Amino acid sequence: MGFIKNIDEISHTDLHRDVLEIIEKGLEAADPEKVFPERLRLEGEKLYIMGREHRLAGRVYIIGIGKASGKMMNAIERILGDRIYRGAIIVPKGYRVERKLNKIEILEGEHPIPGKATQRSSERIMEIIEEIGEGDTAVILISGGASALFEIPAEDLGIEDIAEITQELLRSGATIEEINTVRKHLSRTKGGRLGKTLKRRKAHVITLIMSDVVGDPIDIIASGPTAPDPTTYCQAKEILRRRIGRKTSEKIERVIEKGCRGELEETPKPGDLELEGISNIVIISNTDSLREMRRESKARKYNTIILSNTIEGEAREAGKILASIAKAMLRIGEPTKPPAVILAAGETTVRVKGKGVGGRNQELALSAGIKLKNEREAIVASIGSDGIDGNSIAAGGIGDHTLQSEADALGIDLIEYLENNDSYTALSRLKRTIVTGYTGINIGDLILIASRRRE
Amino acid sequence: MGFIKNIDEISHTDLHRDVLEIIEKGLEAADPEKVFPERLRLEGEKLYIMGREHRLAGRVYIIGIGKASGKMMNAIERILGDRIYRGAIIVPKGYRVERKLNKIEILEGEHPIPGKATQRSSERIMEIIEEIGEGDTAVILISGGASALFEIPAEDLGIEDIAEITQELLRSGATIEEINTVRKHLSRTKGGRLGKTLKRRKAHVITLIMSDVVGDPIDIIASGPTAPDPTTYCQAKEILRRRIGRKTSEKIERVIEKGCRGELEETPKPGDLELEGISNIVIISNTDSLREMRRESKARKYNTIILSNTIEGEAREAGKILASIAKAMLRIGEPTKPPAVILAAGETTVRVKGKGVGGRNQELALSAGIKLKNEREAIVASIGSDGIDGNSIAAGGIGDHTLQSEADALGIDLIEYLENNDSYTALSRLKRTIVTGYTGINIGDLILIASRRRE
Repeated sequence: MGFIKNIDEISHTDLHRDVLEIIEKGLEAADPEKVFPERLRLEGEKLYIMGREHRLAGRVYIIGIGKASGKMMNAIERILGDRIYRGAIIVPKGYRVERKLNKIEILEGEHPIPGKATQRSSERIMEIIEEIGEGDTAVILISGGASALFEIPAEDLGIEDIAEITQELLRSGATIEEINTVRKHLSRTKGGRLGKTLKRRKAHVITLIMSDVVGDPIDIIASGPTAPDPTTYCQAKEILRRRIGRKTSEKIERVIEKGCRGELEETPKPGDLELEGISNIVIISNTDSLREMRRESKARKYNTIILSNTIEGEAREAGKILASIAKAMLRIGEPTKPPAVILAAGETTVRVKGKGVGGRNQELALSAGIKLKNEREAIVASIGSDGIDGNSIAAGGIGDHTLQSEADALGIDLIEYLENNDSYTALSRLKRTIVTGYTGINIGDLILIASRRRE
Repeated sequence: MGFIKNIDEISHTDLHRDVLEIIEKGLEAADPEKVFPERLRLEGEKLYIMGREHRLAGRVYIIGIGKASGKMMNAIERILGDRIYRGAIIVPKGYRVERKLNKIEILEGEHPIPGKATQRSSERIMEIIEEIGEGDTAVILISGGASALFEIPAEDLGIEDIAEITQELLRSGATIEEINTVRKHLSRTKGGRLGKTLKRRKAHVITLIMSDVVGDPIDIIASGPTAPDPTTYCQAKEILRRRIGRKTSEKIERVIEKGCRGELEETPKPGDLELEGISNIVIISNTDSLREMRRESKARKYNTIILSNTIEGEAREAGKILASIAKAMLRIGEPTKPPAVILAAGETTVRVKGKGVGGRNQELALSAGIKLKNEREAIVASIGSDGIDGNSIAAGGIGDHTLQSEADALGIDLIEYLENNDSYTALSRLKRTIVTGYTGINIGDLILIASRRRE
């Protein structure tokens, strides 16, 4: 049983089916239950991670946070088995975790906006950490989503203050780097602060990271709970000024202001000894998926190019540019001749203005589809690897050369839907939403441009 | 003497110099004075255009409109010589046309917003056309900019009505397709109406086109004065509703409304016999430049890819995506390994919100440069082939991996300049504007992504 639930329904052509099956392979390639056994090996007290030796001393605690922590937990359990002493993971509310170990508690938090469950679960994690003693080992499993799922606010802030500023920042079009710079300075867990707590307890710390952030920066993924933080209170202040301005709450402004004046302890910085000895290892990232999708595309006889693993920008504009690459394939045989698949990964953003249902992947696909009108056979597909795109139930969408004509026939004004951020509604009416449900993985978005000239 | 005037000043590295010299070759490859002799050949009464025979009967009139009409005129004159009977061209005010033939008048118009000079010059062209008789030949030289330079308003509209709606549409972020759909239905010259006038006079008509529109659509370039027009009054109405809404002037709304009700004559449609026998030939386009730049890049030992000849979308978002391709080259050696040059062409757009000085090419470069911060050696350069980017005196700009650090050192807040559409001011302070002055050619924008890993 694959990730994509509706392949048959949305395979309008053979090219669609190929694209969807290639995406399926891309998702599989980022599955910890497949990847961990290839990259981790236990030998007595030693854990080899991608060939490098790490010590597994004392009692072994597993702490997992993020959308992929269920699958990461299952995968590490199969490798470490009885070596695990105890642990806990936090997954988003509603995520079904397939298997439940007795030793590892499964907790829930709110996502993408943190709430009471997040705080309660985070406090439970801190209780477990209180137990960890000198010489014990903490294996931290980090994946995207952890910023919202793992949070204990700093100073006198409540979780509702964090929720509010997160929401404002998401709405403002702020980048993930910017959002996390702010969050790290309002938190007792983020920006290396969890790592600092663990090192104070003299534990060994191994952090395994599934990256959902372009470029795999360990300080930004999940707001880097065990990574040194190069950002500062003063930078957070500047971001708030630029992105939110006067709408910033007084309480938050007060904390940031105080920190920027040097009256609060900064997050641990790169080179600081406080985090010495912590291994932050990106164990799975979008390049795993890209390489597997390339292999699969070539096996299916497509000319294949990996365009980028760091795509960012406004989703609808990215869609236009990716469509322009599809057009170039069809019209001038560049950057390669059809039949071809061009692969990309990253994470686009949406500056929400409308009230519709959709997400960045479906907006990208919809916008690309509009631009592919009157072309020969071409597809731009985009999918959020976690399975949930924006406020919709779909993971992503498909834009293709017949989208516009089919919409016209049904009287669906695609541009109006796009303007209203209602990409899901438009694409689902045209059977072009990709549905997976929660995948349990999270490596950002996967994007495919495919072309086949009709013979 | 090349097109780019400040190569020495802006060649911060060897990579910069290579990029600029490759762009220089790209501009040369679109110069009619170089291309026409290769593609046009006169043999008695026959003119061979890219190998195909066309008749040059009767008196030969030359009518040129657009930013490249000076160079197109010089080029055609060198081929047809004494066969030319008379003619006129319209260039933008301030364009210096190198050589002045006695037989061909050089007129001026306003650009990008038409004004009194445009109308006066257009009426002079129509006077000359009044002379053309049965069996004579009209060679029409079309290039971008002609939509503003050649205009006689329809119905009771004045040139100031056209000016106003053009300005509103440009500000609204409307695409060139949308703008021209509206303009064609407010005009006595556009949307095939010039062609219709010429065919009524029983002239032979050969239109040579330098394309500045992505995909080279002959009905959109210069608003297609001799091309069939697939668009309608009712579509123009819909575009006005969507893009301008209530700000549309009553006078314009009345004309479009009347047309949409069928009370005005539509523009000639594809398949209509009215334009039968007119040859609309795209003689120069951005693919000429792309192919020459590829040749030059390969000669300089760069891995080379042509990404697309139809790039469109919001300039600053395109900049981010192109930067993400540069990053992928540096980080994972995809889509190709450095040293590499990736070539693209098209035309981005800017939704102007600020009051600064700049243009789409400089915004694209500035936005890309911001994203290249902390990367190894990489450049994204973008240039408007006509030599004037937006409301600045530069043709384009360079974004590179040291842009941000140099800006920081000078206390220049790049994001603030970008937000204020002030890309020229920022880039010129950092010696990263490409200056050409009017080039006399117009094939849209050329974009280069270049990377070289330091050894």
